[in-house]
Amino acid sequence: MRTISVSVHAGLSRRNPVRIGLGPHRVSVGIAKLDRMAANIPEGYEDLLERAIVGALATVGPDGVPNATPMWFAWDGTHLRFTHTKARKKIKNLQENGNYSFAITDPDNPYRYLEVRGSLDAVIADPTGAFYVELGKRYGNPDTPTPPDAADRVILSLSATYFGKK
Amino acid sequence: MRTISVSVHAGLSRRNPVRIGLGPHRVSVGIAKLDRMAANIPEGYEDLLERAIVGALATVGPDGVPNATPMWFAWDGTHLRFTHTKARKKIKNLQENGNYSFAITDPDNPYRYLEVRGSLDAVIADPTGAFYVELGKRYGNPDTPTPPDAADRVILSLSATYFGKK
Repeated sequence: MRTISVSVHAGLSRRNPVRIGLGPHRVSVGIAKLDRMAANIPEGYEDLLERAIVGALATVGPDGVPNATPMWFAWDGTHLRFTHTKARKKIKNLQENGNYSFAITDPDNPYRYLEVRGSLDAVIADPTGAFYVELGKRYGNPDTPTPPDAADRVILSLSATYFGKK
Repeated sequence: MRTISVSVHAGLSRRNPVRIGLGPHRVSVGIAKLDRMAANIPEGYEDLLERAIVGALATVGPDGVPNATPMWFAWDGTHLRFTHTKARKKIKNLQENGNYSFAITDPDNPYRYLEVRGSLDAVIADPTGAFYVELGKRYGNPDTPTPPDAADRVILSLSATYFGKK
């Protein structure tokens, strides 16, 4: 197991995070707490976090019903980041129950996968859609345009506290 | 939308289902009820249920934490079926909270997917591992051997009551 320390990034998304609609029970899971935590990425599985793979992000609704859908992602060394719009189901779910599970299956070997679990860290406004464009480029389209719903775009930043693998 | 009627199959897995560890609150969601339900597979998405794609199955633990992992599956026209062993986390989760979500992403077009939701219908003993072998063949290995843990193998049969798509 490779141990990495979790620290605050100075990148665009974390320098001035605008937290949207996080209830008081979420605020306690803030950056200070994450600084003291460590995530153990299973050795030899780092590539699954770095490659542009479409994973499946599962959240849980208030009725206990899970919701799993394919998602683009980026790994910044400590957090998974997703582009989303404010109003969608996953955001609402995560604001009620911050727990998530993200399955990343190796497209070249379906027996090999990484499951990442953790919880909602922050919902960060992305009103120019810059992070959407960044992800579009990462996923193979260098000409990704600004999305038409840019005004509603947010970055979901999720902590990673557990890794399962096979 | 194509409407299919949900009926009892006469196949191996449903003729003599051996129900394991289903609490009384689960028994009420039995075959008689499913007979009166209908599942609407979005038109043009049937192939995602029929192809040997590795999907991601999400269940929810008693602590509200989701668990998403890649899984082989078979679609029998009304139910998703998975091979599993008795003791594993997903079975325990589903016996406490029967709700699941299964994301099937088109490997040839990651923008296209089907999300299936529903609940646990039955856990069916598969002590010879026959269903495991059937799935192994479906997923490309005609020489799939009987699994060493055959005695503990079960078939998870999950009803399909909701389909999301993109």
